[in-house]
Amino acid sequence: MAKIGIVGLGSMGFGMACSMVRAGLETWGHDVNPDAVTAFHAEGGQTSTLHAAAPSLDALVVVVLNAAQTKAVLCGADGLMTQMRPGAVILSCATVPPSFAHEMEAEAEKHGLLYLDAPISGGTVKAAEGQLTIMASGRPEAFDAARPTLDAIAAQVFTLGDHAGPGSAMKSVNQMLAGIHIAAMGEALTFGMTQGISPETFLDVISRSAGTSWMLESRAPRVVSGDYDARSSVDIWPKDLGIALDIARDARFSAPLTAAALQQFLAASGMGLGAEDDSAVAKVYARNARLTLPGKDTP
Amino acid sequence: MAKIGIVGLGSMGFGMACSMVRAGLETWGHDVNPDAVTAFHAEGGQTSTLHAAAPSLDALVVVVLNAAQTKAVLCGADGLMTQMRPGAVILSCATVPPSFAHEMEAEAEKHGLLYLDAPISGGTVKAAEGQLTIMASGRPEAFDAARPTLDAIAAQVFTLGDHAGPGSAMKSVNQMLAGIHIAAMGEALTFGMTQGISPETFLDVISRSAGTSWMLESRAPRVVSGDYDARSSVDIWPKDLGIALDIARDARFSAPLTAAALQQFLAASGMGLGAEDDSAVAKVYARNARLTLPGKDTP
Repeated sequence: MAKIGIVGLGSMGFGMACSMVRAGLETWGHDVNPDAVTAFHAEGGQTSTLHAAAPSLDALVVVVLNAAQTKAVLCGADGLMTQMRPGAVILSCATVPPSFAHEMEAEAEKHGLLYLDAPISGGTVKAAEGQLTIMASGRPEAFDAARPTLDAIAAQVFTLGDHAGPGSAMKSVNQMLAGIHIAAMGEALTFGMTQGISPETFLDVISRSAGTSWMLESRAPRVVSGDYDARSSVDIWPKDLGIALDIARDARFSAPLTAAALQQFLAASGMGLGAEDDSAVAKVYARNARLTLPGKDTP
Repeated sequence: MAKIGIVGLGSMGFGMACSMVRAGLETWGHDVNPDAVTAFHAEGGQTSTLHAAAPSLDALVVVVLNAAQTKAVLCGADGLMTQMRPGAVILSCATVPPSFAHEMEAEAEKHGLLYLDAPISGGTVKAAEGQLTIMASGRPEAFDAARPTLDAIAAQVFTLGDHAGPGSAMKSVNQMLAGIHIAAMGEALTFGMTQGISPETFLDVISRSAGTSWMLESRAPRVVSGDYDARSSVDIWPKDLGIALDIARDARFSAPLTAAALQQFLAASGMGLGAEDDSAVAKVYARNARLTLPGKDTP
């Protein structure tokens, strides 16, 4: 039976960990929040510590917030890279710059470890169902070693190259579009309100017209129902659009729509909405135009 | 048999006129280009002039470029409104400000005419198939009088209000999103190229991911194949996003993504690409980043 560790039992990682247990993998979970670890034990997670199990792991999944946390987990004197057996594989799932993925792959190779650049997409529901999309790149041996884990957590795995980097690059391309489309949904929905079009009518018509997008169909219903319980939070976007714009700046690439979308998410976060659902970017537009969105506590 | 006139036999109007003939409507076409009129005769259009037939028309479809042309066709000393019989209906299909639609409805009522605010969506292929989407508003009598024409040209008619204005407002909301999504496609596709992601791989992965949009799936294949023969031209967007931003300014509505998208289409038009397919907005990004897009004559 494959032995898998997973670091990060947050909104995405917890669902992935449970999917791994359901798929019959012997799974150790770790999180800075001990309650999350206890909750995972109740779902069938191994009860010894991940650090104790590290030398026997076949694969380690890292689902933390960003590059800095990924590096803290893997590298340094007590990083997990120093404790894993040669030939084991690391699946790195945070959204990070491609250059960071490349650097981590080189670091893993120094320890005789395989590395899969494996950012995830699909949201918490698909994470819990084991139905994520993974934009992956890495050596063929890394894909082979990661296969049981990928089968447990993903419905779709894109194979984007034989080294780390292209997976993270594609994730940033996807996040650029997703972030723009969420902000554009907020912009158009509220613009329509200034013209007497209700959010309900907006959703009904636009979701069946050429102006629709995957994100509009996902997020506009939340604005219509006034439900801002976070499934993907506002604060994801200053991070992910920030990464995209950092990469773009390094490449001397001008990305004006991405830059405009980032400003709207920053304004939402600045309004104190960072932990709300990312559809709350519509509240920035509503506030600026003195519009009242659906829902009892929205401006 | 219903007698219908149509003014404007361009890329959209010609297909609509032919759909009307196919549906068994007695149809008179007019265009400033006499070749278009001759071509429509060959498709079964009536050969007497539309102006001669005006007093007997049941409905008049106006499919010209903008508000100014619509007004020139309908109003003034020799405008068609002065020549049509009371009770006939006008279907106004150009993208115009809601306030203009409202003004035209009032003008039509002075002449005893019905008026349907009826902007169209769907592109030239659906126009030719009689399968357009129409975002319509107007008095119930106007809808009733327009029914045979709507049945001939549209697969889907949204009923957005009992007076002119909401139809045009919804069209501007849709165009705002569509324009943003086309520019965002160009931005993300070329950003991906700076990271080593080919346009083909971009299309393959993103069209199956959360970053997709209706417009991306329509337009990205044209960039991938280097085919910029216009189905919807770059120059549509300075017009339609300009209308949206004019309405937004009047409403004191801040629309930063729309504004950013407009600048990219203006740059494309300024580069001399106004008559190319709107997917050529990708060339603005490619030029700025010294990227070579697919196709033999692209930078």
